[in-house]
Amino acid sequence: MNRVINFSAGPATLPLPVLEYAHDEFLDHEGTGMSLIEHSHRGPAYAKVHAEAKALFRELLNIPDTHEVLFMQGGATAQFALAPMNLRGPGQSADYIMTGAWSDKALAEAKITGDAREAGTGKVDGNYTRVPTQAELDLDPNAAFVHYTTNNTIMGTEFHHYIDAGDVPVVADMSSDILSRPIDVSRFGLIYAGAQKNLGPSGITVLVIRKDLAERSPDSIPKIFRYSTILNGDSLQNTIPTFPVYMVRNVLRWIQDLGGAEAMEARNREKAGMIYGMIDDNSDFFRCPVERESRSLMNPVFRLPTEQLEKDFIAEAAHAGMVGIKGHRSVGGIRTSIYNSMEPSDVSRFVEFAKSFARGNA
Amino acid sequence: MNRVINFSAGPATLPLPVLEYAHDEFLDHEGTGMSLIEHSHRGPAYAKVHAEAKALFRELLNIPDTHEVLFMQGGATAQFALAPMNLRGPGQSADYIMTGAWSDKALAEAKITGDAREAGTGKVDGNYTRVPTQAELDLDPNAAFVHYTTNNTIMGTEFHHYIDAGDVPVVADMSSDILSRPIDVSRFGLIYAGAQKNLGPSGITVLVIRKDLAERSPDSIPKIFRYSTILNGDSLQNTIPTFPVYMVRNVLRWIQDLGGAEAMEARNREKAGMIYGMIDDNSDFFRCPVERESRSLMNPVFRLPTEQLEKDFIAEAAHAGMVGIKGHRSVGGIRTSIYNSMEPSDVSRFVEFAKSFARGNA
Repeated sequence: MNRVINFSAGPATLPLPVLEYAHDEFLDHEGTGMSLIEHSHRGPAYAKVHAEAKALFRELLNIPDTHEVLFMQGGATAQFALAPMNLRGPGQSADYIMTGAWSDKALAEAKITGDAREAGTGKVDGNYTRVPTQAELDLDPNAAFVHYTTNNTIMGTEFHHYIDAGDVPVVADMSSDILSRPIDVSRFGLIYAGAQKNLGPSGITVLVIRKDLAERSPDSIPKIFRYSTILNGDSLQNTIPTFPVYMVRNVLRWIQDLGGAEAMEARNREKAGMIYGMIDDNSDFFRCPVERESRSLMNPVFRLPTEQLEKDFIAEAAHAGMVGIKGHRSVGGIRTSIYNSMEPSDVSRFVEFAKSFARGNA
Repeated sequence: MNRVINFSAGPATLPLPVLEYAHDEFLDHEGTGMSLIEHSHRGPAYAKVHAEAKALFRELLNIPDTHEVLFMQGGATAQFALAPMNLRGPGQSADYIMTGAWSDKALAEAKITGDAREAGTGKVDGNYTRVPTQAELDLDPNAAFVHYTTNNTIMGTEFHHYIDAGDVPVVADMSSDILSRPIDVSRFGLIYAGAQKNLGPSGITVLVIRKDLAERSPDSIPKIFRYSTILNGDSLQNTIPTFPVYMVRNVLRWIQDLGGAEAMEARNREKAGMIYGMIDDNSDFFRCPVERESRSLMNPVFRLPTEQLEKDFIAEAAHAGMVGIKGHRSVGGIRTSIYNSMEPSDVSRFVEFAKSFARGNA
């Protein structure tokens, strides 16, 4: 096999050893005579996978007893709707920190079922080239929660500080930087993340929720959409997507083997450092539109001198076996998504290619 | 590999050739240098899978132009909530035909967000041992829709007739008998089905919806939960579970190769015929609690003379490589789930085992 280097923003590359492990036992899961995907979600084989995935996630993210791990369907987009439906009391409003397309979508969904307002923005001259500081926020002390997107895949920005909202619970969409570094989970009321960037394939959403918040779900929303139902059902209240959870379990084992969240942070800083170093060292050719303090460790974005050069760059990269580097259609340019699974050696190869391209086209 | 015969109710057995095909290209999807699960849901490799899955489903179920195929997350359980949220107008009620646990759950969710009523029941002496006839229904001509479960996995009953509700749209949960036989799709306003029984692994829900109904979704419900959003987004409005759709595509190819819905019906009648024949020919030992006209072709259920004999039967079957035959915990007994993927030769082996057990324990 001629494996390409895949910089896609998600679904994204996965560790080759994880893929090989799943491949090896795909037809016969642990000697049970059937594939994992043929096992009942209520049988012992899947139960073991489920429990291990939860336990590993809890261990790797150092989750306190006050919080529980839930698995849901629908991706972060479903959570844009479900978080306010579950956590906002009658007449309450919710605060949203604006950092681009994902926060726009989250706020829009929140406004459909109740009150929600902007409590800060990273917009500068019409573009989200930074994230706001704590001092720039205008927080409502009576809000049901304050919501933010910790990493912004399209703009290439990331929060490198926590949000302090006092007693107001903090809700974070961590789809694109979950488990990319250690975090203090006690600072969050709810964390949610689609798996398809740092944790596994698409099809499962991981939540970390403060248990007292999960129990707030109102009776007015459908049972299947209540966090309390998922909490009380151990995420098995109905048929769970077994294969995505299995793959998340396998990725979590791989993260543990590499040394956990601390090792991921070192690995991710190394990779991002290579790319931002290349950009800054060749500032006559490459330009990062994001302010330095807000640069994403997950999705470095940059521009070339012209759009034609960007097209050529993408085509030559593909020819060299590096794909998925085209920036989001709404912003253009180049985007290199380098989640946990991306190998530093592959980033190094990309950086060598980019430098060579710059030299050849300066 | 020592492959077992898996009678689980879902997630369920899948065709071995389908599993082998997925296994063969798991690490390198169609020579792209990456796994299908690493491909972007917006890239050409997945786009091809998506389009083919939809086209095959449309062809195999003979879906008219008035209807569209959608993929959603959350299983049938999410549809219990979403169908009434989307299809019921202000002040409107919906009719539910009661046939056991699944219809109970569907009705309970519908009542949370509006009016809904029972429009008929299959309950006889406290048990759902049959489905109601058309004449037994009490339909509301002003209902937003009439809902029923075409096959009932727990009770082992199945509708072998259509529901005629005049101009009222018929909504059917076909999770456990979708594509097990040809149907006249034009008779339905909405069909929904979790994939994990007849179509693939868990993690994706297939809908067939009359387009004019999909467009009715009210602005008062979150965008991501509107059928209109899924219709207009070609089910790609947010990240789709790519692997489950891929596996459904592979199962649909296999169904097509075997001759389509007509061939599935013949195959399923043959398998169910073997099991019901065994029961009826050994009526001193086996007993099917379901009335003959309502017997399920997907989940034949039966009892043995004593619960101890049932325990022994399950244990001896497992020893002979046949698993997943324990009846649902709410009803006990034996359940043999024999969806599309179950091989007739494997059912034959089971029937031989069962007859031998009956002879040995008569």
